[in-house]
Amino acid sequence: MEERPGYDEKLTRILKEAASVFAAKGYHQASIRDISAAAGFSLSGLYYYFDSKEELLFLIQRRCFQTIVERARSIVAQDLPSETRLRLLVRSHLRFFLTNMREMKVLSHEADILTGDYGDEVAALKREYVGIVTGLLEELRPDPDGADVRVATLGLFGMMNWMYTWYRRDRDPDGDELADQMIHVFLNGFLDGPVDRTLLVDGSDRQPDPSAPSIWQSP
Amino acid sequence: MEERPGYDEKLTRILKEAASVFAAKGYHQASIRDISAAAGFSLSGLYYYFDSKEELLFLIQRRCFQTIVERARSIVAQDLPSETRLRLLVRSHLRFFLTNMREMKVLSHEADILTGDYGDEVAALKREYVGIVTGLLEELRPDPDGADVRVATLGLFGMMNWMYTWYRRDRDPDGDELADQMIHVFLNGFLDGPVDRTLLVDGSDRQPDPSAPSIWQSP
Repeated sequence: MEERPGYDEKLTRILKEAASVFAAKGYHQASIRDISAAAGFSLSGLYYYFDSKEELLFLIQRRCFQTIVERARSIVAQDLPSETRLRLLVRSHLRFFLTNMREMKVLSHEADILTGDYGDEVAALKREYVGIVTGLLEELRPDPDGADVRVATLGLFGMMNWMYTWYRRDRDPDGDELADQMIHVFLNGFLDGPVDRTLLVDGSDRQPDPSAPSIWQSP
Repeated sequence: MEERPGYDEKLTRILKEAASVFAAKGYHQASIRDISAAAGFSLSGLYYYFDSKEELLFLIQRRCFQTIVERARSIVAQDLPSETRLRLLVRSHLRFFLTNMREMKVLSHEADILTGDYGDEVAALKREYVGIVTGLLEELRPDPDGADVRVATLGLFGMMNWMYTWYRRDRDPDGDELADQMIHVFLNGFLDGPVDRTLLVDGSDRQPDPSAPSIWQSP
């Protein structure tokens, strides 16, 4: 496609407005007409930049993950201790999503929509990102009986990503302070030797709990 | 409403099937017709149990939060050290959502749908639940300069709840082992004295990063 003057800025504006509309209404409920109204483009003007709503969602997801993965690559390439690089990564992630909270909601809620090449390309970026964090945690892991690295990595992402459900700018710490808090909780525990499985008062709690299997068992 | 014979079991079946349909298609995309097909009830048969799709979502959310809050209440009432009670709470939460993963997705993705009395009642249950966990962490908090209790509580919920995006029964630890892993990572860090904000190699990282403000700045 030959690029019109101002192509990049216009595409950027469209993606930003589309992300807001998707975050507010959900992907399926949002129409191209809603996005046209929000972005101030005619429908035909919009379709110059993408061919379908799915491509639009793909462009948003790819832009987010490309940005965050590029930052992660440049952080891990630095000649710094693994722990410092992990801290920088957590800050980078939290800063990014604190300033792009609507995009974070779209990435979480619309994670299963993309299929085919779109889905593959975004999945590859996500895998690379998770791989970078997993690699750092592997380097840091002090004890072979310590925390499971996969659980720890995804636990750390959970701690960070869940933020879009609760974070309030008027009462919660800013990005770097939030990163310090989370790293503190996460990293000291992660570095803390073998997993303790003995704190319970008796062993009975480890048995399958007959009341647990499903919420849908009649009471 | 006078109850038909088998009312509770039938309602339970409807709520379970409706949760599956909501998890698969999303609330807005799911129709009562889809739920009727999944549950094996006629449309008029279904409407004996609820008046609207929103009521159905409310009944699912209320059932989940009531169950988990009741378990939490009985755990914190036990005469056990705070740390043991926290461990039991984490196990209870993970067991519950590992066996009700589709419901977990519905609770997360459709958290903003309920309004009015429905929304208020569910919000009150959530507040109570978060309050129970916050209370335990307040009791455990070892250092006034330690981790922010609100951030830690919501970080712990994030660690646990994000699971619905990644957990795979065939490769990941079962509920109690997962709980031990997460508690290990979380609790040792939480208990570990003042938050360390000094690990960075220089102070420059604490400055606002001009490249951070928004993903939508042109590159």
